Amino acid sequence: MLFENLGTPSLLLDKDILEHNCKIMQERAQEAGIKLRPHMKTAKSIEAYHLATDGGFDGITVSTLSEADYFANGGVTDILYAVGIVPSKLAEAQRIQDKGVKLSLITDSLSVIGALDDEALRLETTFPILIEVDSGGQRGGVLPGSDDLIAIGKAIKASNRLSLEGVMTHAGHSYHCTTPEEITAIAEQERLAVVSAADRLRSEGLPCPIVSAGSTPTAVFAKSFDGLTDIRPGVYMFGDVDQMFIGVCRSNEIAVSVLASVIGHNKGAKRILIDAGGLALSKDTSASEFSSHTGYGLVCDLSGKVLEELYVESVHQEHGLIASVSGDLPYEELPVGSRVRILPIHACMTVAAYEQYEVHSTDGELLAKWDRVNRW
Amino acid sequence: MLFENLGTPSLLLDKDILEHNCKIMQERAQEAGIKLRPHMKTAKSIEAYHLATDGGFDGITVSTLSEADYFANGGVTDILYAVGIVPSKLAEAQRIQDKGVKLSLITDSLSVIGALDDEALRLETTFPILIEVDSGGQRGGVLPGSDDLIAIGKAIKASNRLSLEGVMTHAGHSYHCTTPEEITAIAEQERLAVVSAADRLRSEGLPCPIVSAGSTPTAVFAKSFDGLTDIRPGVYMFGDVDQMFIGVCRSNEIAVSVLASVIGHNKGAKRILIDAGGLALSKDTSASEFSSHTGYGLVCDLSGKVLEELYVESVHQEHGLIASVSGDLPYEELPVGSRVRILPIHACMTVAAYEQYEVHSTDGELLAKWDRVNRW
Repeated sequence: MLFENLGTPSLLLDKDILEHNCKIMQERAQEAGIKLRPHMKTAKSIEAYHLATDGGFDGITVSTLSEADYFANGGVTDILYAVGIVPSKLAEAQRIQDKGVKLSLITDSLSVIGALDDEALRLETTFPILIEVDSGGQRGGVLPGSDDLIAIGKAIKASNRLSLEGVMTHAGHSYHCTTPEEITAIAEQERLAVVSAADRLRSEGLPCPIVSAGSTPTAVFAKSFDGLTDIRPGVYMFGDVDQMFIGVCRSNEIAVSVLASVIGHNKGAKRILIDAGGLALSKDTSASEFSSHTGYGLVCDLSGKVLEELYVESVHQEHGLIASVSGDLPYEELPVGSRVRILPIHACMTVAAYEQYEVHSTDGELLAKWDRVNRW
Repeated sequence: MLFENLGTPSLLLDKDILEHNCKIMQERAQEAGIKLRPHMKTAKSIEAYHLATDGGFDGITVSTLSEADYFANGGVTDILYAVGIVPSKLAEAQRIQDKGVKLSLITDSLSVIGALDDEALRLETTFPILIEVDSGGQRGGVLPGSDDLIAIGKAIKASNRLSLEGVMTHAGHSYHCTTPEEITAIAEQERLAVVSAADRLRSEGLPCPIVSAGSTPTAVFAKSFDGLTDIRPGVYMFGDVDQMFIGVCRSNEIAVSVLASVIGHNKGAKRILIDAGGLALSKDTSASEFSSHTGYGLVCDLSGKVLEELYVESVHQEHGLIASVSGDLPYEELPVGSRVRILPIHACMTVAAYEQYEVHSTDGELLAKWDRVNRW
């Protein structure tokens, strides 16, 4: 039996698929003549970093200072921390800088520049800062045409301890598209937002060496990267069911899956119970906006073949309940004690429950264990 | 500023509230003359175990073998692993037994008894087994009136390596009630399910020393525990927003909260951004069935006072977006760089993102760091 020496639930990572996914995105960036600065918030693994940046630009993006520290320890020297910075985090940022890293920070708040400058002075260091721009995602960021953009740029330039490094954006709303055309349109909106913001800063005499954009969907479907210096996709390395519905990957291009045991048959409710629940799969149900039959994950056999009609319909803390679209459950093919693999709805959330990857080839040979950096 | 030496996000645990919650449930069990076998799947902490069992029965319930191992290392000697067992997990179960633990296992599957017996023979050990009964939750378990119940009982008795220890159930459907009367009714349904199952087994000449039921809501609102030997609530130790709507606790009886920093103001979208997102809070939205203004958590100031009208309306991996019911956001009271505490929707899911608790008194003094046992 494949993977028989692993306990359940375990996190599987198909290295062949990962390499394929990394290579495709590298080729795309090379053809477009743009730097790929992969977002490591999904993989959080130094081995995945090496595959993602192999032979190319070696800068990365991270979502926590723990990630920045981990990758600094792994030898990465150019890191963008892409969550709004606050003064209380600068001491930790300095500790990472001191490992020989250029650690770029972001903000969208004029009101915090003074306190950042004060804290940098207290720490006797300097920090490169990018201004976060809202390209339509309505999460963080100033609007590219706003007065705030220029005011923040001027405040950073006026600071002795902060240097204006450029602008960045993330078109998170691309995750809700279903056609390539829609994503292409959002990619163009994303590009124009930061390019126009950069133009406005430069016309005020402010420096803007970095013009950064990117999400996996927009990186895949953008028609133009003109004016950008780098793109920052992340989940493309692994793929997931949500990305499959967006059109970014096929089910056989999803690199991660959760190995689970069948622990019961509920023939009354027509459910097969597995030992992967809300903690092992996460409670993310993003793909439900595209299909009512995805729940908390799709079900595969041990070879990775999708078992049509089956999905994890509900979860409790350590229980998952597999339902079938037709109502017919394959009890005989999946007896109690047998095992399945679950394709995650949202890889970033699912893999965060594990401290390591069980790395395997597509034909099921276990190759290695890779660590991850979790938490903050 | 309270908690100023902690990074964000961090997991806070109010020891005063935890002690209060533990004491109330102990008193309730004592008055009812029933053993409290707390489910440690929420707290996963040896210090919380000591508070929960202080001076009383010291058996516990767990949801993973990692928990069983951790609590065995902490000196616990009577552990019920309350997720359906499969043969591949028996070697690990034996390793825990060998630490001097009575480790009880559960099943609801006649088909797996033979393989469990074979594996126990191979391991040259024996295992106590409880039969899982479905009291209406429609997750795992055989129906109390089913032929399967008796067939499983007889198969366990006929086995040389398995011993029939009793019956257990969990009325998970009590989590969806909104009135004490509804929960009381489900508690009675839960009790009758296992008591009648025990009666049927005994009438067949089968042993049934343990008759175990319980969830936090049914433990709180049950009118009778007659015929039960123990109850297994868990989340009562911490409470959460979901339990608050069920009527189990008040907001000032929720022991855990997530300390987060304000990292931005999005005045266009009327949101305050914090650095606690889907990983720091979990993506559990259980309380949405009771209120459309709970999202991923309620917002408190640093003293723990609920800021009325505010809730975490949406999350990304490391971003949370606070909205207000009225649409008015307190930007001035919560400037960028200030901090808030978020009350979790479902404590079991939220606390699982952290390796440790920052234990504090209600007045904000930091007392200790307690570890947790996560994963599998």
